[in-house]
Amino acid sequence: MKDRECLALCVRDGRLSLLDQSRLPHRQDWFAVDDVNTLIAAIHALQTRGAPMIAIAAALLVAVRVEAGDDHAAVGEAIARLRAARPTAVNLMHAMDALARALEDDDWRTAVVETAEALFDDDRALCDAMAEHGAALISSGERILTHCNTGGLATAGIGTALGVIRRAHEQDKNISVWVDETRPLLQGGRLTAWELATLGIDYRLITDSMAASFMAAGEVDRVLVGADRIAANGDFANKIGTYSLAVLAQYHDIPFGVVAPRTSVDAGCARGADIPIEQRAAAEVRGVTGAAGELAWAPADAAVANPAFDVTPAALIDHWILDSGVFDRLEVEAGVFQFGGAAVING
Amino acid sequence: MKDRECLALCVRDGRLSLLDQSRLPHRQDWFAVDDVNTLIAAIHALQTRGAPMIAIAAALLVAVRVEAGDDHAAVGEAIARLRAARPTAVNLMHAMDALARALEDDDWRTAVVETAEALFDDDRALCDAMAEHGAALISSGERILTHCNTGGLATAGIGTALGVIRRAHEQDKNISVWVDETRPLLQGGRLTAWELATLGIDYRLITDSMAASFMAAGEVDRVLVGADRIAANGDFANKIGTYSLAVLAQYHDIPFGVVAPRTSVDAGCARGADIPIEQRAAAEVRGVTGAAGELAWAPADAAVANPAFDVTPAALIDHWILDSGVFDRLEVEAGVFQFGGAAVING
Repeated sequence: MKDRECLALCVRDGRLSLLDQSRLPHRQDWFAVDDVNTLIAAIHALQTRGAPMIAIAAALLVAVRVEAGDDHAAVGEAIARLRAARPTAVNLMHAMDALARALEDDDWRTAVVETAEALFDDDRALCDAMAEHGAALISSGERILTHCNTGGLATAGIGTALGVIRRAHEQDKNISVWVDETRPLLQGGRLTAWELATLGIDYRLITDSMAASFMAAGEVDRVLVGADRIAANGDFANKIGTYSLAVLAQYHDIPFGVVAPRTSVDAGCARGADIPIEQRAAAEVRGVTGAAGELAWAPADAAVANPAFDVTPAALIDHWILDSGVFDRLEVEAGVFQFGGAAVING
Repeated sequence: MKDRECLALCVRDGRLSLLDQSRLPHRQDWFAVDDVNTLIAAIHALQTRGAPMIAIAAALLVAVRVEAGDDHAAVGEAIARLRAARPTAVNLMHAMDALARALEDDDWRTAVVETAEALFDDDRALCDAMAEHGAALISSGERILTHCNTGGLATAGIGTALGVIRRAHEQDKNISVWVDETRPLLQGGRLTAWELATLGIDYRLITDSMAASFMAAGEVDRVLVGADRIAANGDFANKIGTYSLAVLAQYHDIPFGVVAPRTSVDAGCARGADIPIEQRAAAEVRGVTGAAGELAWAPADAAVANPAFDVTPAALIDHWILDSGVFDRLEVEAGVFQFGGAAVING
């Protein structure tokens, strides 16, 4: 396997390392991932995160295990276990299904490694394609609101929604960004703020509860978010808080766009209500865990609800920005996602 | 001055003490307030908070200073300085104006002390009246969403929105409460969760971004919030995030009510846009400060916006629940708030 590197993942001399995103921005710690247990724990702890990124990390780990000499049964088991590591994002399932198909090849070792490598390389190209299509929508001077982190940390390339923002910035469109901090795990406050600062893109960090207020003040021109899974009818699941933004954007007549690669489309999932939503630990809402330590502010036994994702219905979405182009509600209603990513490409 | 005590304020032997709300729920520390500088600092640091509570604390401190022998000019200056301590809530201004009128009395020492004492006693009665009117709206089994803290900690009595909830609970209405954590200062996660737990009322703590998702799932029957100031046209300012809930409630056809005493009505303020909004420090959004310590998770120099309040327009409000009764949009449009609290009482 050739060496590969992106913002939060590295393969060098056949060994996979990941940037510990739970420690950003205070610490930039890399950790080696040599086995399935380590990666599943890292995915659960959001040390690695982003729907495309966890798919690629899992695929490259399987390739690492193949090159390390694991037998066919062990590789098959690794693929099955990784596939179930997070229930909401579909990219991971798609990637593992691709590896499972490669595992049926006569020369399965070569096929699995090449498939994993292609997933990495393709993701970079998908990001660039989304960025081009999305940036074409953006007018000079736009103030764009985003949620969670959808940038270089979440993909092998420049990102999904944040990749569009980055490309618009590179095109000198003089944009600025409202960054939702994205409780409970603060991917906006920790990761997106850090990426934007690094890229020299103007931004302001806000609490999630402030978005509506700036919309009402006429200070938000567009909302762009990523997706963990897009259903056949155009509904999509994404980080909790996304649905709230979609309702608020419609109320304030602000265009709302979802940016995702074909690997996020699940044609086998008829509608958003069919997407399983991961429920996470109460401690995440009772307080916060960060690079600087842990802090709990709620009563220690506070009853909590903590769904990690929500579902935004197609009726609230203006633009589906994929690597294959920008789709509107009429196209989505006409069935552009009915046959999944491949159909989108040909559609 | 007679001894007086409520959940977060105490006057004993002529000395004022406040419960440090910035340390709740981990620590229940009381601190003495003997001078104006101490109270202004405590208000700014939200060691004491809640629009009715800061008005009462300020009034009682002025009474303490009068009993300590401060001269007429010093008391007048204290009143003027306290009046300006927070720009958004109007209760403080009303209370200080009442003291300023008492200061014109021939026997001003007696008049000021009696006025301050009456503000405390009246607030308890206002809370009870709001609770009765509000609880009458609530059906058995309702799941009520609230924001920030509007309970015993925020008033001299049982609270505004949380007082209504408490009264409905006392009426065995089998209610439960969704508690917005209320970033950035986490009054929901720290204070409301603590009050509800203490009262034995069923609740679940959520991040602010989750409210929409539970509304969409049909799990929210009503939204009740407090107010820092109600304008003559019925618009009101309240903790940042309130406006977002009002838009979301309307979209999901969920009744939205604001609960406030007559002391929160500012007839001299024509509309919400005229209410000054306090802007607070960036550090509050870059991280958190709590009883257990401080934690900053965003880049240290992250650009931030931090308005402490937002304005909800009358068009999004279903019920104005005051001590004088429950008003609907038609009554508010007909001018029930045009002449302020007194007119409301007589209206």
